[in-house]
Amino acid sequence: MLKLKTKITELFNIEYPIIQAGMVWVSGWKLASAVSNCGGLGLIGAGSMKPELLREHIQKCKNATNKPFGVNIPIQRGDAEKLVEVTVEENIKIVFTSAGSPKRFINVLKENGVTVVHVVPSVKFGLKAEEAGCDAVVGEGFEAGGHNGLDEITTIALIPQLVDKLNIPVIAAGGIADGRGIVAALSLGAEGVQIGTRFAATVESSAHPVYKQKVVEAEDNSTVLTLKKIGPVRLIKNDFAYRALKAEMNGWDEEKLKELLGKKREMQGIFEGDEKEGELEAGQSSGLIHEILPVKDLFQKLLDEIVEVQKRNNRIINY
Amino acid sequence: MLKLKTKITELFNIEYPIIQAGMVWVSGWKLASAVSNCGGLGLIGAGSMKPELLREHIQKCKNATNKPFGVNIPIQRGDAEKLVEVTVEENIKIVFTSAGSPKRFINVLKENGVTVVHVVPSVKFGLKAEEAGCDAVVGEGFEAGGHNGLDEITTIALIPQLVDKLNIPVIAAGGIADGRGIVAALSLGAEGVQIGTRFAATVESSAHPVYKQKVVEAEDNSTVLTLKKIGPVRLIKNDFAYRALKAEMNGWDEEKLKELLGKKREMQGIFEGDEKEGELEAGQSSGLIHEILPVKDLFQKLLDEIVEVQKRNNRIINY
Repeated sequence: MLKLKTKITELFNIEYPIIQAGMVWVSGWKLASAVSNCGGLGLIGAGSMKPELLREHIQKCKNATNKPFGVNIPIQRGDAEKLVEVTVEENIKIVFTSAGSPKRFINVLKENGVTVVHVVPSVKFGLKAEEAGCDAVVGEGFEAGGHNGLDEITTIALIPQLVDKLNIPVIAAGGIADGRGIVAALSLGAEGVQIGTRFAATVESSAHPVYKQKVVEAEDNSTVLTLKKIGPVRLIKNDFAYRALKAEMNGWDEEKLKELLGKKREMQGIFEGDEKEGELEAGQSSGLIHEILPVKDLFQKLLDEIVEVQKRNNRIINY
Repeated sequence: MLKLKTKITELFNIEYPIIQAGMVWVSGWKLASAVSNCGGLGLIGAGSMKPELLREHIQKCKNATNKPFGVNIPIQRGDAEKLVEVTVEENIKIVFTSAGSPKRFINVLKENGVTVVHVVPSVKFGLKAEEAGCDAVVGEGFEAGGHNGLDEITTIALIPQLVDKLNIPVIAAGGIADGRGIVAALSLGAEGVQIGTRFAATVESSAHPVYKQKVVEAEDNSTVLTLKKIGPVRLIKNDFAYRALKAEMNGWDEEKLKELLGKKREMQGIFEGDEKEGELEAGQSSGLIHEILPVKDLFQKLLDEIVEVQKRNNRIINY
């Protein structure tokens, strides 16, 4: 049976260094507990939850798994402090932070014995996270779905540069949807992977069936990074995404772009399944996803693929 | 001693599936022969050569190595037909084509027993290359230096999708500068790699010392893909690149952008070393390049790194 031991499996006391990204409208207790039960690390995505709803998800997740799981908190959210409070009160020991400075909550989290991981799009932000006291970083490449960095650094370029410059372990994210991507990430020096879109298109994901179907139908060029002036986001191309792209090409300013975006388009796209006007946040790896599997089946498939890839590499590389 | 056997080493009858990209103003006979002498595949970049200069480089390359080498021909060039003619006359048996439809010269090349590889940025163009009769494709990701595709698909997302959809072998390019990138590419299913920027910054490269120095100084976020409306190109950020970016942000049309670009900026940047106003074409892997080595030393370093990475993977992945 496959064993995968890295600094990340040690850090979280998990079996496999495969982390399910905490995604808005996608990863509630069902998805997170399913991933943790397989030996990976499930994350509840607090970004689309009010504090009391987060508490409910944490409690349900505790009932559904005895294995470690965590919570992802986007720091820039207005009520992020409340989300952190709930997380600490509920005795959660693993928190992934994103979208904002990790300094803001690191003290309260570390005082409560929480392992803190921050998501970064570049070496500069990686160094800041390490300096702030984070235990690890997720290096997220340009190909990742949803919100993204301004520097457009891709996974294959970003990960080895983070590994060279940081002392804390690096988890790779962006473009990874199968065993090939996982072994590629390990080859780049990552100690683990964070997988988003692939888990968003599982049975246990709370995304709308229409969203999942759009991911399955997507090809290599079906997503685009847009709205760069007001916060880059990678979306499956639809009516809204094309309008945003066109506005960008025509040089619209921030104010006009914000008006175009409006509010709640993430919910509209991912949770309500509005395939035309919603934001269908997904990564370039969508083109690798052809079926909506239960987490258990997907996880076993990933493990089988890892073995297959490593065997092939050992056939090719004779040293 | 390391052995690396793939469909690409068989196709070209070379020892290692490491191909040096045929780059304008960079890869003449000196670089190409040095790479081929190490057991990789050197490519003469015809894109910046008049037909008779190409002939001279081919002849000098023949004198400098007994190993296989090839020529890269950008199909959209005005005198591409002449370049193809010279290549065939000089009995070159390996041609990489890029920037244009591979159909244009495939018949004359195949009739003369040439192995033809086309560079593609997406599955769509990969399928077209296969249909045209190409023997392999280079899948080039968004992170690659120089001219790039419109779909912005990155190496880690592109390569497995090409591998799944094509029957001919796939060579990975974009973001690869060391052994980690090479093993990552093999993990993704590639049969070989094409490396550009790393070879552009070797002793044998004909790029200007200032260009090489800019690559060495570059960090993870030092390059940018710009001029998307008139032909996307990845450059090290300098005065010209910032002007181009600003014009793009302000929604300039094609005509104005072409005027801004003008002519000969590639030569000005890469060959003449104008660090402010020239186009310094380079990939995101620049941030991984810290020294200007002779090809022989670099090649040995890559091979050593491949072994190191595969050993680490075998320590992590126990099946």
